[in-house]
Amino acid sequence: MRIAQVAPLFESVPPKFYGGTERVVHYLTEELVRQGHRVTLFASGDSVTSARLIPSCPVALRLSPGGEDELAFHFVMLEKVFRAAFDFDIIHFHLDYLHFPVSRRQEIPNITTLHGRLDIPTLKRLYQEFSDMPVVSISDAQRRPLPWINWQGTVHHGLPLDLLRVGNGDGGYLAFLGRISPEKGVDRAIEISRRVGLPLKVAAKIDKNDYKYFETQIRQLFESPDVDYVGEIGESQKAEFLGNATALLFPIDWPEPFGLVMIEAIACGTPVVAFHGGSVDEVIEDGVTGFIVDNIDEAARAVNRIGDIDRERCRKVFESRFSAARMVADYMNIYTRLQGSPTLSEDLEPVPK
Amino acid sequence: MRIAQVAPLFESVPPKFYGGTERVVHYLTEELVRQGHRVTLFASGDSVTSARLIPSCPVALRLSPGGEDELAFHFVMLEKVFRAAFDFDIIHFHLDYLHFPVSRRQEIPNITTLHGRLDIPTLKRLYQEFSDMPVVSISDAQRRPLPWINWQGTVHHGLPLDLLRVGNGDGGYLAFLGRISPEKGVDRAIEISRRVGLPLKVAAKIDKNDYKYFETQIRQLFESPDVDYVGEIGESQKAEFLGNATALLFPIDWPEPFGLVMIEAIACGTPVVAFHGGSVDEVIEDGVTGFIVDNIDEAARAVNRIGDIDRERCRKVFESRFSAARMVADYMNIYTRLQGSPTLSEDLEPVPK
Repeated sequence: MRIAQVAPLFESVPPKFYGGTERVVHYLTEELVRQGHRVTLFASGDSVTSARLIPSCPVALRLSPGGEDELAFHFVMLEKVFRAAFDFDIIHFHLDYLHFPVSRRQEIPNITTLHGRLDIPTLKRLYQEFSDMPVVSISDAQRRPLPWINWQGTVHHGLPLDLLRVGNGDGGYLAFLGRISPEKGVDRAIEISRRVGLPLKVAAKIDKNDYKYFETQIRQLFESPDVDYVGEIGESQKAEFLGNATALLFPIDWPEPFGLVMIEAIACGTPVVAFHGGSVDEVIEDGVTGFIVDNIDEAARAVNRIGDIDRERCRKVFESRFSAARMVADYMNIYTRLQGSPTLSEDLEPVPK
Repeated sequence: MRIAQVAPLFESVPPKFYGGTERVVHYLTEELVRQGHRVTLFASGDSVTSARLIPSCPVALRLSPGGEDELAFHFVMLEKVFRAAFDFDIIHFHLDYLHFPVSRRQEIPNITTLHGRLDIPTLKRLYQEFSDMPVVSISDAQRRPLPWINWQGTVHHGLPLDLLRVGNGDGGYLAFLGRISPEKGVDRAIEISRRVGLPLKVAAKIDKNDYKYFETQIRQLFESPDVDYVGEIGESQKAEFLGNATALLFPIDWPEPFGLVMIEAIACGTPVVAFHGGSVDEVIEDGVTGFIVDNIDEAARAVNRIGDIDRERCRKVFESRFSAARMVADYMNIYTRLQGSPTLSEDLEPVPK
């Protein structure tokens, strides 16, 4: 099948640093190519891919200043995409809603994976207008704020099987991997570790927007001898960081649409102790790949029972449920179904809104 | 004629505070209605207009946080605009390039006034793609970075004749009205005033982006007894602020696309001493409505000769060249010309870019 993947331009594919969406686009693209499909990737010029790359800006836009520049580059990219549209059987967008005004007006099979949270009031208004756009959720939970939009399926993220390997989990520490922001709960992770008497290793980025939170609420917690803040880590360091951990702590406080870190952990054989919320109970199987809890007390008790979890079993579950190949199989079902039916909206009638 | 005006949603029309684009849309809309046209205004819900208002968000988006929300509201507004498009003879956009991907795909007469500077590298890339979009410049100077795009005319801004009245100019001070930012040159204005021995009154806003500049470079200059910083002033205070001034200082350091403050000054009979740049020599007539200079020395000498300027003559020039009625007449010429010729792009060919 001739497939176009249209990536956001803020980060390259794969990203040089943090970029969940771009990582997923990368794994999806590479696996599609590996399976023999003809894939064209629209992304920043510093992307690295086995697909045919159409560079849509010189380098990832994060490296250049100016918010408005970013939209202009995406608009130019979309014109290229639609100019080439008849070269593709399906176009797969990862731009949130940026392309909707155009894709709605072109008779070309397309699908959009929504990568973010949908519990934002403006999105409701946007989707009331664009309720016809065919979209894919990355968890069933993600859909909850907007159950009535044109969902074509849920496709959980997947990773290449050789990306991470099983570790012994004998480093004697708990792991926190992600961002320092209130909803991710590093403070809760610190408290859980304290209660079970294990050190916590924190590999995390501090976004510009989170500096104030870090400075006022978190910095002093990091001064404890039981907290080891290792800063941001790259992909190559994750296997060791996660693989040696007793467990990954995931004490979230928001409706996480997916949470790649959970499947990265179990790919390393490391169970996850996660708070209920978002996709957690679709991704983690309580008692099998970790424990799902509601508060710090329960989390501490779960860590104390972590020996009940079989690390090899975690890896097996990862391989069967969260591989890039499984993700591709799910998307291929959707592509195939949509390919035959162009998604042009019926003529817009003057409906008063 | 049935005319749609499509305003940005960051500020209301007219704006509660600062908003050059929204002010111009307001004056244009009101004068079109006054002349008997059937005008529909797409703008924020807290806009106030004689036209038919289609509220496209509850209140000006400046009052709500979140950059991505703003784009979503504009996309929803554009769908409303195009759903109603056959109700209009012409659609006039003031959204920079936000609507281009859609207006290019719809066979509806439309025109876009570009309100900002065009010497931005990304815009060149954007306009290479959208070179067919019919656009209007607000000065000939504004076009200089992109002389090859589809210009339909230059229409200088205009103000209602009754907005401002002539003042005596006997307040014994020089006026600076605008923003505290490096390119506007309040520091140069202060130096000019010092050299001629006149106090400077500064009515200006300090944008969030300019706080650092203000704190590090300007604040101490304001502590001089000869500098009176009056903060931001509203429309009703401008007549007095400008009308009592000996002259308005406009020592810009950037290619200002228009500069409403210049015509506000001459509407009050107050001459303008301006640095060369941007639209200045299209708006100010040297020796008639002010002096155009190249540096602080020349500016000081110009202030010392300000008695050569006839204040009543300034007002007369304003009335003949910069009225809202003249602005409307210029736009009506363009609307009429475009009305008969839909601006659908010829079929897009697969041109490698």
